Amino acid sequence: MAVYTEVTDEALRSFLAAYPLGDLIAFRGIAEGVENSNYALKTETGDFILTLYEKRVDPAELPYFLGLMDHMAARGLACPVPVKGLDGHALRSLADRPAAICTFLPGVWPRRVRVEHCGPVGDALAAMHDAAGDFSLSRPNTLGPHGWLPLLDGCRGAAMPAEGVFEELQGALRRTLEEWPHALPVGQIHADLFPDNVFFLNNGPVPRVSGIIDFYFACTDLLAYDVAVCLNAWCFEPDFSFNITKARALLAGYRARRVLTHAEIEALPVLCRGAALRFALTRLYDWANTPEGAMVTRKDPMDYVRRLRFHTAARGPEAYGL
Amino acid sequence: MAVYTEVTDEALRSFLAAYPLGDLIAFRGIAEGVENSNYALKTETGDFILTLYEKRVDPAELPYFLGLMDHMAARGLACPVPVKGLDGHALRSLADRPAAICTFLPGVWPRRVRVEHCGPVGDALAAMHDAAGDFSLSRPNTLGPHGWLPLLDGCRGAAMPAEGVFEELQGALRRTLEEWPHALPVGQIHADLFPDNVFFLNNGPVPRVSGIIDFYFACTDLLAYDVAVCLNAWCFEPDFSFNITKARALLAGYRARRVLTHAEIEALPVLCRGAALRFALTRLYDWANTPEGAMVTRKDPMDYVRRLRFHTAARGPEAYGL
Repeated sequence: MAVYTEVTDEALRSFLAAYPLGDLIAFRGIAEGVENSNYALKTETGDFILTLYEKRVDPAELPYFLGLMDHMAARGLACPVPVKGLDGHALRSLADRPAAICTFLPGVWPRRVRVEHCGPVGDALAAMHDAAGDFSLSRPNTLGPHGWLPLLDGCRGAAMPAEGVFEELQGALRRTLEEWPHALPVGQIHADLFPDNVFFLNNGPVPRVSGIIDFYFACTDLLAYDVAVCLNAWCFEPDFSFNITKARALLAGYRARRVLTHAEIEALPVLCRGAALRFALTRLYDWANTPEGAMVTRKDPMDYVRRLRFHTAARGPEAYGL
Repeated sequence: MAVYTEVTDEALRSFLAAYPLGDLIAFRGIAEGVENSNYALKTETGDFILTLYEKRVDPAELPYFLGLMDHMAARGLACPVPVKGLDGHALRSLADRPAAICTFLPGVWPRRVRVEHCGPVGDALAAMHDAAGDFSLSRPNTLGPHGWLPLLDGCRGAAMPAEGVFEELQGALRRTLEEWPHALPVGQIHADLFPDNVFFLNNGPVPRVSGIIDFYFACTDLLAYDVAVCLNAWCFEPDFSFNITKARALLAGYRARRVLTHAEIEALPVLCRGAALRFALTRLYDWANTPEGAMVTRKDPMDYVRRLRFHTAARGPEAYGL
């Protein structure tokens, strides 16, 4: 939830003059997304989202993110399309920040995930992997395996949310890095396909994905790791129990569009451990490095430590319903 | 900035089934408004705002607020109109909270107030007072003069944002209550007409008010007190200097539509002191009663203590350009 940057109406009007979008009708801050400032923008020609990229996004990486969305949309994926200005450029500057306007996607993200959402999510993830298949740019996964040890080191000596958590993560990390697969298919991955990044329309009996958003963690990495992120994000219940029916639906949705190789399937447990570690470690890092009394909501790292325990106990891909 | 309550899509869909608005297209939390949860709602028939009323709003007062908006809109004021369900009722319940859908207003609130905004704001305030003139319900101003001493008492003994502030407010409050006028015209007032509650469209050279929102502090009180709130809200610069040109424009805009009586004009300095006290005291109360480290942003009471000092020094209505 975030609007970090306020935009004066003079600045907004002169910014919009660079686009063929017609007169401004409305402009409201959106309470979703945590990294950037997002505004719902309505002009004479329709609805759009204006994003101001805040500190956590490296401006040098924006051509990758915007190019990826443009590329996938051209291949039929329902994702935000960066709108080009009259000069042909989608990336501009507003209120001293990089800024872009993207098309508005209809749909509602599911506040409570049901089994019926999971097949369509798997299908949408595979569609994204397909649509990005021939994208020419690449971006290393800064929050991938190479980034996990520095994150854990950055928490050393800090107060932990529970006793023994540092040692537990240290052990799981060592084992996960030793077993990490290297010969699996690589491509552009979303890397953050949580429920609030998937919009659905429910006009029929079965929810239909109307769009995927927020590609600002996208990177070039193992495609099956993206599946593992989704298993973590979509298939645990609020009490952290694993719902194998949701996992089966998600995996079946994915495999109906893209084949998971034998090696990818065998690697699922370690990939799922890695995905749980990634979110446990970034949350723990924020937890350890947020000053007492800071005006931000800290997310609980234990949510992912609990998921990690499930994956650590998994003896093979059959734990995920395969 | 606030979305406090998450609404599941099942609950939202069954809620919307009570309205003649067609299928749901989109539903996004809005990062504006501090008291309630607001969502931008798009359906087949248009754009709307869905509000869930949170703890600070007394459900018994909602018929006043919604009735007032309905009444004023019927008299031509550009304000949100509560949408009635198929059963004729605008006030319903969603996610265990009172909830209502209102029409969407075009426009953008000014992040930086210019002189050209102030005349139209004065005019819009007078238009609101006119449109509410024959509204039959009433609501006492719980944050009016009778509420200020309890607010100050609730801060007694707490750490102050600056030395001597408690005593300064105590003295100003005593003097203001002694001088408070009682024989001025009374009606329905907005009581919180800050820039983020006034939308403008800028299609011509002069900004035009496209709508007024957020009537959840509205109450029955001195009309000229509402003018005093606006002088506090619109006519101080970021360094807390008073901009008399803005005040002249605001008052001229108001008086072109509604006559300010001699007694109202003479009372402006004390009314302005009262308005500055009201915002200084609610902010101080929140300041004094927010636990150290709470996850909320505390607004600085000193912003209004500084305004109060200007009003205290004002020798008469000429300080406001009259």
